[in-house]
Amino acid sequence: MKGKNVVVVGATGAVGREMIECLKKLKFPIKNLRLVASERSAGQKLDTPFGKITIENISEKVFAESDIALFSAGSGISKEWRERVVKNHCLMIDNSSAFRYEKDVPLVIPQINADAAMKNKGVISNPNCTTAIAAMALYPLHKAFGLKKIIVSTYQATSGAGAKGMQELLEQTKNFTEGKKIHPKIFMHQILFNIIPHIDTFEKNGYTREEMKVSWEMQKIFRDNKMAISCTAVRIPTLRAHSESIVIETKKPISEIKARTVLKKAKGVELIDDTSKFKYPMPMNASNKFDVEVGRIRQNLVFGKHGLEFFVSGDQLLRGAALNAVEIAQLFV
Amino acid sequence: MKGKNVVVVGATGAVGREMIECLKKLKFPIKNLRLVASERSAGQKLDTPFGKITIENISEKVFAESDIALFSAGSGISKEWRERVVKNHCLMIDNSSAFRYEKDVPLVIPQINADAAMKNKGVISNPNCTTAIAAMALYPLHKAFGLKKIIVSTYQATSGAGAKGMQELLEQTKNFTEGKKIHPKIFMHQILFNIIPHIDTFEKNGYTREEMKVSWEMQKIFRDNKMAISCTAVRIPTLRAHSESIVIETKKPISEIKARTVLKKAKGVELIDDTSKFKYPMPMNASNKFDVEVGRIRQNLVFGKHGLEFFVSGDQLLRGAALNAVEIAQLFV
Repeated sequence: MKGKNVVVVGATGAVGREMIECLKKLKFPIKNLRLVASERSAGQKLDTPFGKITIENISEKVFAESDIALFSAGSGISKEWRERVVKNHCLMIDNSSAFRYEKDVPLVIPQINADAAMKNKGVISNPNCTTAIAAMALYPLHKAFGLKKIIVSTYQATSGAGAKGMQELLEQTKNFTEGKKIHPKIFMHQILFNIIPHIDTFEKNGYTREEMKVSWEMQKIFRDNKMAISCTAVRIPTLRAHSESIVIETKKPISEIKARTVLKKAKGVELIDDTSKFKYPMPMNASNKFDVEVGRIRQNLVFGKHGLEFFVSGDQLLRGAALNAVEIAQLFV
Repeated sequence: MKGKNVVVVGATGAVGREMIECLKKLKFPIKNLRLVASERSAGQKLDTPFGKITIENISEKVFAESDIALFSAGSGISKEWRERVVKNHCLMIDNSSAFRYEKDVPLVIPQINADAAMKNKGVISNPNCTTAIAAMALYPLHKAFGLKKIIVSTYQATSGAGAKGMQELLEQTKNFTEGKKIHPKIFMHQILFNIIPHIDTFEKNGYTREEMKVSWEMQKIFRDNKMAISCTAVRIPTLRAHSESIVIETKKPISEIKARTVLKKAKGVELIDDTSKFKYPMPMNASNKFDVEVGRIRQNLVFGKHGLEFFVSGDQLLRGAALNAVEIAQLFV
């Protein structure tokens, strides 16, 4: 297996750091690993499982000398550099939402539509974290039973707003304990002991962009525009795993037992579903785990024999971002 | 208006204390207020808006001398004392789930089915907190559009487990900040920075009792057994307001505008729904408020013209318990 020259753009961010970890944990064949971050960090050395690596400024030269670029530095940077990355025949795997809805940009979860990745024109998009986590459970069910309706309510961790989001929760916790005032900075409102039903901007239809992403992206990844999907996205005071309460209506009849049989075999999924032993998905346990926890599986009371209800928890930084991006890169090894 | 002799059973608990506060805030005509709590507390004086009141042991005599008994001391106490309360012509308003599903016991939210309260045979049940909070928004919509399907995911505060639940969250917060280990006691798992999709015991169908309560109680209060209702109940690290993400399918076509018009007029509801100003229901703001906050109203993408999606936050101890109980008592003044 030939080693690859890989560059991580946004290497000091929460997702960037996890990308480096995932490259190591997945034994990605690295020839040379380069790290790019903002000017503020450039020149500093970052401790990585590949040794200390000096952080570089972004430049066309870096991409000219790389085979694969993992981008996680925000939509702005991705848009600004796309042309120069592609022109230099460096494959761009982008964690931002910048290109996800472009017809010519595959939106990929390797366990679901690896084939789409092969049809890329230089850029592959990584899905939104909430979408990716739900999709791990939904796609196997879609293949087996056909999904007609998907209704999602989310419980999203502060890591969704990056390292700063997590820091803010920890700071507010400290300030509360010390009797100090809490001043929200990253989140619009206090997040400690509170929840905020507002992530990303609002669309004209009253949904947030975060909520619409779940709808748009699931349809694109599953290649099925007929599935009706709605989502309520809520930020909650947890650190790095997202949870989702999901109700589905299926074309074929479904049951708890049938669903479990399918999900037991699904890749990237761990069944945590033994209520007699108080085992169900929880962010505390799903954090730092590659697999998405799925449990609380039960026949849904609203859709009857064609309905199922369940709960998932998945690491937002891993399946929701870094792990998925590195797994996409692995398709090209 | 003739004053009533009222006794609060479970007066030192989180709900009991709020019952006393509500009696004052609603200007309930009190002739004599008596407080009953466990033997441990008996003899102590409790500071109340009605002055210092000595806590008594439970006894048949107390009920013989009272017109109304507000019970919030758990199902066991309610079951044990029911006969002796009723025999003494003291109206029992019970916050526990002990009698809610008995045919002859009205389950009442005064804004919805006050008439049912009048048909009591000595006992009236107060609904589950999650049910009561959702019902404030759902019933006006039911009357106007006819509810066919209701899908709920909850974000439930630690107060649902009483004062001890809230204490546990605060203790875990303190321990975390001080770098100490966290040992769950009241909740099955750590609740700080975590969520637990498990409240009350599990039923055979895979739902928890807490989830089934929403289904059973909504049907009973709305007097409509045909509405299909499903719920996922999740404990989250907040203090005293429950939130719920709710999707409905209606018989008549519904729209954002129509729904807002109906909810604006609804009693016990406060529309907090201006996303342009980042106004939506949040537990932080809904705490200590009588009205249930309703917002994020939007046409649902799954049920189309017959579908609506919204978010509610309501004080668990008030609308979810004490306030509703005192409002029931007011029907008899």
